[in-house]
Amino acid sequence: MAPFVEVLAVPTGTPEFETLKQSILDEFWAGVPESLYLPESLIKNPPKDVTAVSRECGLLTPEEIDITENYDAVALAEAIATKKFTAVTVAQAFSKRAIIAHQLTSCLVEWFPEEALARAKELDDYLERTGKTVGPLHGVPLSVKEHMPIAGHYSALGFLDTRHKDDHDCHMVSIFRAAGAVFYVKTNQPQGIMHLESVAPLGRVLNPYNINLSSGGSTGGEAALLAMRGSILGIGTDIGGSIRGPAAFCGIYGFKSTSYYLPQKEFLTGGFAAELNVLCSTGPMCHTLRDMDLFVSTLKAANPHLEDPCLIPIPWTGTTTPLPSPKLKVGILFHDGQIVPQPPIIKALEWAKSQLSGFPDLFEVKEFVPFRTAELMQNIRKAYWPDGGKAVKAHLATTGEPMLPLTQWILKDAESDTDAGTDGVLAMRVARDLYRQAFVAHWNSQDIDVLLCPAFVGPACEHETAFYWNYTAFWNYVDYPGVVFPTPFKAGKKGEEDYKEEYQEVLSQEDKHVRELWQKGDFEGAPVDLQLVGRKYYDNQLFGALEKLKGALQLP
Amino acid sequence: MAPFVEVLAVPTGTPEFETLKQSILDEFWAGVPESLYLPESLIKNPPKDVTAVSRECGLLTPEEIDITENYDAVALAEAIATKKFTAVTVAQAFSKRAIIAHQLTSCLVEWFPEEALARAKELDDYLERTGKTVGPLHGVPLSVKEHMPIAGHYSALGFLDTRHKDDHDCHMVSIFRAAGAVFYVKTNQPQGIMHLESVAPLGRVLNPYNINLSSGGSTGGEAALLAMRGSILGIGTDIGGSIRGPAAFCGIYGFKSTSYYLPQKEFLTGGFAAELNVLCSTGPMCHTLRDMDLFVSTLKAANPHLEDPCLIPIPWTGTTTPLPSPKLKVGILFHDGQIVPQPPIIKALEWAKSQLSGFPDLFEVKEFVPFRTAELMQNIRKAYWPDGGKAVKAHLATTGEPMLPLTQWILKDAESDTDAGTDGVLAMRVARDLYRQAFVAHWNSQDIDVLLCPAFVGPACEHETAFYWNYTAFWNYVDYPGVVFPTPFKAGKKGEEDYKEEYQEVLSQEDKHVRELWQKGDFEGAPVDLQLVGRKYYDNQLFGALEKLKGALQLP
Repeated sequence: MAPFVEVLAVPTGTPEFETLKQSILDEFWAGVPESLYLPESLIKNPPKDVTAVSRECGLLTPEEIDITENYDAVALAEAIATKKFTAVTVAQAFSKRAIIAHQLTSCLVEWFPEEALARAKELDDYLERTGKTVGPLHGVPLSVKEHMPIAGHYSALGFLDTRHKDDHDCHMVSIFRAAGAVFYVKTNQPQGIMHLESVAPLGRVLNPYNINLSSGGSTGGEAALLAMRGSILGIGTDIGGSIRGPAAFCGIYGFKSTSYYLPQKEFLTGGFAAELNVLCSTGPMCHTLRDMDLFVSTLKAANPHLEDPCLIPIPWTGTTTPLPSPKLKVGILFHDGQIVPQPPIIKALEWAKSQLSGFPDLFEVKEFVPFRTAELMQNIRKAYWPDGGKAVKAHLATTGEPMLPLTQWILKDAESDTDAGTDGVLAMRVARDLYRQAFVAHWNSQDIDVLLCPAFVGPACEHETAFYWNYTAFWNYVDYPGVVFPTPFKAGKKGEEDYKEEYQEVLSQEDKHVRELWQKGDFEGAPVDLQLVGRKYYDNQLFGALEKLKGALQLP
Repeated sequence: MAPFVEVLAVPTGTPEFETLKQSILDEFWAGVPESLYLPESLIKNPPKDVTAVSRECGLLTPEEIDITENYDAVALAEAIATKKFTAVTVAQAFSKRAIIAHQLTSCLVEWFPEEALARAKELDDYLERTGKTVGPLHGVPLSVKEHMPIAGHYSALGFLDTRHKDDHDCHMVSIFRAAGAVFYVKTNQPQGIMHLESVAPLGRVLNPYNINLSSGGSTGGEAALLAMRGSILGIGTDIGGSIRGPAAFCGIYGFKSTSYYLPQKEFLTGGFAAELNVLCSTGPMCHTLRDMDLFVSTLKAANPHLEDPCLIPIPWTGTTTPLPSPKLKVGILFHDGQIVPQPPIIKALEWAKSQLSGFPDLFEVKEFVPFRTAELMQNIRKAYWPDGGKAVKAHLATTGEPMLPLTQWILKDAESDTDAGTDGVLAMRVARDLYRQAFVAHWNSQDIDVLLCPAFVGPACEHETAFYWNYTAFWNYVDYPGVVFPTPFKAGKKGEEDYKEEYQEVLSQEDKHVRELWQKGDFEGAPVDLQLVGRKYYDNQLFGALEKLKGALQLP
């Protein structure tokens, strides 16, 4: 078994559980050739920022470095279509870089380069034979979160007892496969897929920019892999921030669509009780705006609603969507009335405001008044666990899996073991709809097209401290689409930045806690993302707005 | 108190309940001038078919007869806009005709002509002053089902304990009010709004074409009022057939949209447990296809999603929707594998098939293979009562209201008093989504654009025998939009029609029961509607298809 970087041990379960976990680890590493191992010395003494290791470790050829670093998915698809690179070369480059990334950040749960190379070969042959690509993702590697079934691979719902081999692709994977995508890895997620610290049997995911920080969750493996450029395009799911949180922690793009916008059939076999009142959404994680558009347009072009009738057949216009008025009305939310974001986030918001104000003919910038965040968070925490956490405990008991600290944290609000019953679930539904109606009235009163806001209470946090999801979960509760995007900022050295004068007032106990976490933590190097949000079902307009904001916000 | 026609007594509740009920009756009749009473002799000896009474009773002027009989809403709006009629004259005509209809069929729960006339006067003055109408429904009377709040009027959720006066309009009513609609009545619905026999404190709704038959439910008051031409346009809701059933029983149009297509905010205050897995839909009940289009286009033009964010902002193109291919592929379902429709329905389907086959350049007609109806009905009955009927019993107990026979019938499938709990509600959700996915695959395999099918197991049934909802509830469970429309047929005299040779095979116990009901019943005069169904979210295409079918099916 290869060594891999560990900065904080994962709690252990029963001996039976540990034996099972070890067998999974052994199976994984048995598939990795020693020629791709990083030096043990590096593993034992890694730099805090590991993003340069792949490039410098000598395991990648210059061409492989070029392929993995200098292209987005659109460019890569074009390079393969025009035969600048073969799909095989591309699959090889990303497979290698992914396993390097994994040794540094534990971002994977499965790695299957042979299958990827075989598929890439088929695609190369097809292109050679016909002169055509099979689709818009011909030869583009696509990384997939653990719980999404790929034929012949393992999926799990964040508990070891749910891990099993799938015999067919889930809906979204099948569309991407038909469009030419090449699958080569599955990525790490948290326990129960329901918090922001991704820890699977293969290890705890580390943030590539500062391994003492979390990569977030639940799509934390994807985010770390993408930041390591071991992937160009990945698939996430988000019911409280699980795309946007990790994307923001790792400085990439992440898009959570409105619910029932993109295919999720077979993502969560057996159902997910939280979805009785808060639907899960899906979307891309990647490096550029146009890659997000490629991801969505590829799915929409397949008419997925003809196979999964819950999907709403709103056609995709994406970044070409015409905007309602010559000036885009951009709201800015500096804080949500509950928790003041940590200094780097405020700094980025102030920068964004000043950038937009530089184009008065294009943008009308307005401060957005916060709206009943505490109530929303109370409602959504109840809605996540209508069974009082019963199912979680049953899963853990089956294999002797330990309950991880952040699972305990999120469960503490669900009255333990008390089932809400029909009345309770219905009361949550009624409260949700009344809240949504009240919020849309508030949004209307603010007269904005899109809202710029934090993606989290700070940049990436230290391990096991991702307690507060309010800046992402808010948009799940009201079901608005949201995109997080990178800014040019990174957090500075410890002690370099502090809360400014005008943000000294502590808004709540949670706010106090977040300030304490900032004082004691070392966030150096953590990327800073911001979030742009649009009205429910206005996913197209959100992309149109991002396109318009591109220049002013220096968006990749 | 005026007399009104009764053919079958309504079960009585506790003395307290009966006192309360009597006070509501007294209040209603106190508002009706004796000059509008029908002769007592007529009430005591009504004809079986009462549709001609309004015209012949002498209470309406020739102009009032003309207004109420010879216009649809589109024509009436035009006649008012061009000052052929004043809004006051129109409001007067429909108010009078509505109270005549009520004495014969118990279709109303409230009648408020003074308010209607005052509003009509305002509209006339506005038109006189500005030369403009306030909106597309300027002066058009609109009848409203009891549970939908209108400011200053009573609403109830089908139990007397829920009856209360509302202080503001619900969302849909507010849109129609702004568009110029004139409100003048609220209409009768069944106990709990959850079955197909409409019985309120004011009486049992009778079918105007044969008072020994039911007008259906739950929007049964509307259907009877429209068939009596005491209304030109009404609002229904439908979670199992509550628009389509009564519309079909009374020979008019009824459209159940896809869920979250049209505004229903405040329709069901406090929530409706059935909606955890089967969403209620809404839509128009009226006499012509273009009136249905007017109803929907008026709502959509108000951008209702800006106030109620659950609404999907698919723009309305309605009857002008372009169809996918030169030939419209029309499936025909003669029976659903569970219950063979009674003879008049089969006859109408055969006629429709032959009509469409007469235009081979326009239509491709295919027999549709039935799909797992028994399973669907088992699932949906459970989904309707996730609390095991607990809430229903609590409502009844509060006032001493008796449980009516069809409430007992539908509750018998819910395991009495057993709450499904979160696990149960989730299991229903999973089963529903798997069913929907399987059904859409079946629909795809049949390669059709729209499906022509029965609207009920027969024409209007005898009172208290509306047991089987499968031909409507099917489309609620899969959430497909459906329109019922009148055919030129009516049921003949008792004994004139019987099941044909090819439909002798009894498919199930329910089928056997339906055949027995046919043998013993007298359905003479009952109108025959059929149903056209489209794919989920294809409401526009459904209207486009109806427009194309207009000539061949002699649609009004």
